[in-house]
Amino acid sequence: MQFVVTLPEWAIRAQHELPTHLLAAEDQMREVVRFAQLNIDNRSGGPFAAGIFERDTGKRIVIGVNRVIPSNVSSAHAEIVALSVAQQLLNRWDLGSSTMPALQLVVNWRPCAMCYGAIIWSGIRSLVIAGSDDACEQITGFDEGPIHPDWRNELAKRGIALQDGVLYDQAVAVFRNFRDSCDVVYNARRS
Amino acid sequence: MQFVVTLPEWAIRAQHELPTHLLAAEDQMREVVRFAQLNIDNRSGGPFAAGIFERDTGKRIVIGVNRVIPSNVSSAHAEIVALSVAQQLLNRWDLGSSTMPALQLVVNWRPCAMCYGAIIWSGIRSLVIAGSDDACEQITGFDEGPIHPDWRNELAKRGIALQDGVLYDQAVAVFRNFRDSCDVVYNARRS
Repeated sequence: MQFVVTLPEWAIRAQHELPTHLLAAEDQMREVVRFAQLNIDNRSGGPFAAGIFERDTGKRIVIGVNRVIPSNVSSAHAEIVALSVAQQLLNRWDLGSSTMPALQLVVNWRPCAMCYGAIIWSGIRSLVIAGSDDACEQITGFDEGPIHPDWRNELAKRGIALQDGVLYDQAVAVFRNFRDSCDVVYNARRS
Repeated sequence: MQFVVTLPEWAIRAQHELPTHLLAAEDQMREVVRFAQLNIDNRSGGPFAAGIFERDTGKRIVIGVNRVIPSNVSSAHAEIVALSVAQQLLNRWDLGSSTMPALQLVVNWRPCAMCYGAIIWSGIRSLVIAGSDDACEQITGFDEGPIHPDWRNELAKRGIALQDGVLYDQAVAVFRNFRDSCDVVYNARRS
C-alpha cells in the first residue's frame, strides 16, 4: 500500500558527473535537454526531463526524468519526479519556505495540465522552459491536456517567474528523435 | 534518488475490514468521507480521501488519503496517492486499458488543478465527487488552483463521466471538523 518512483541508474550516475553548480539558465537547460535525450536512448521513459537548481547560486539539487511506463505511474512526469525527489531529499513539502534558498525548475517543454498544478503547489519560485507552442504535441503526439487558458498570468499571480524559449531548437530536436524512435505515446485519454 | 509515498497503517487496516465490493456510489462515498475524517483524527494528512472501484461491479481496488505533510511530497494529494497505488498494484500505467474492467474514482471534493490533469492521464472512466462549489475553499482555506474554467466539458470530451453532489453535507462536515482542529493548510503558493 505504497508507490515508489525511482530514477534510472544512468540518471543517478550522470548527474553525479555534473558540476555542482550551473548558474546560467542555458547551461541548466542544456543538461535537462541532454537528460531527455538520454531517457530515450536508455528506453527508461518519455522524452522529458526536469532539473531543480537554487535560483541564485545555480546549485544543482536533482535532475529527474519521465518515468511513467517504467514505474507504472501515470503521474510520474519529469516535473513531478524531480519535485518529489527534491522534496524528500530536502525533507520539505514546501520548496518555497522562507527559511531556504529560492528554487528554480527547468523543463524541456511547457507543463501539461497536471504538472502545471504540481508546479504551483511545489513552492518553486521560477520556471524555465524550452518552449510552449504546439511543436511538442505536433511532433510527438503527446496531449498536454486542458491547461488554464491564462496559465502564464496565473503563475505570475502566485509569484512564479517564467522564462520561455531557452534552447528551443535543441528541445524540439529531441522530440523529433523520439518520434523517429517510434516509442509508445502514453497519454491515456486523448482528446 | 527516488520518492516513496505510503498509506498510513490505520488506512491499510481499515480498508481490509471493508466489504470487497461496494456498488452504489453513495456507499463508496460514505467510506471515502469516513477515511478523510480518519486522516484528520490520526493526524496523518489533509482532510481528503479517494477510492478506486470497478465501475460495474463495485470491487474495491484501494482507498488512498492525502499524504502531503507526512511524505514531504506536495503532489501526494488523495487522488494521486490512490491512482498511483492502484497503478502499481495492477502493474498498469493506464487504468483505462481495454483489457481490464472500467474503473471509477470517488473523491470527497472536486479535484484541484493538478489532480484534474492527473485524473485525465490515469485512465479512470468515471469520477464521483461530493461537491464542487467553494465550500471547501471557504471552510478550510485550501486553494484549488487555476483549474480550466470548462473543466466539466473537458472531462466529458475525454470520455470521463462525472457525478457531482454525492453526500455533499457529510463531506462539508469533515471540512468543518478539519478547520476546527486547526491543522496547517499546506498550499505553498496562495493566490
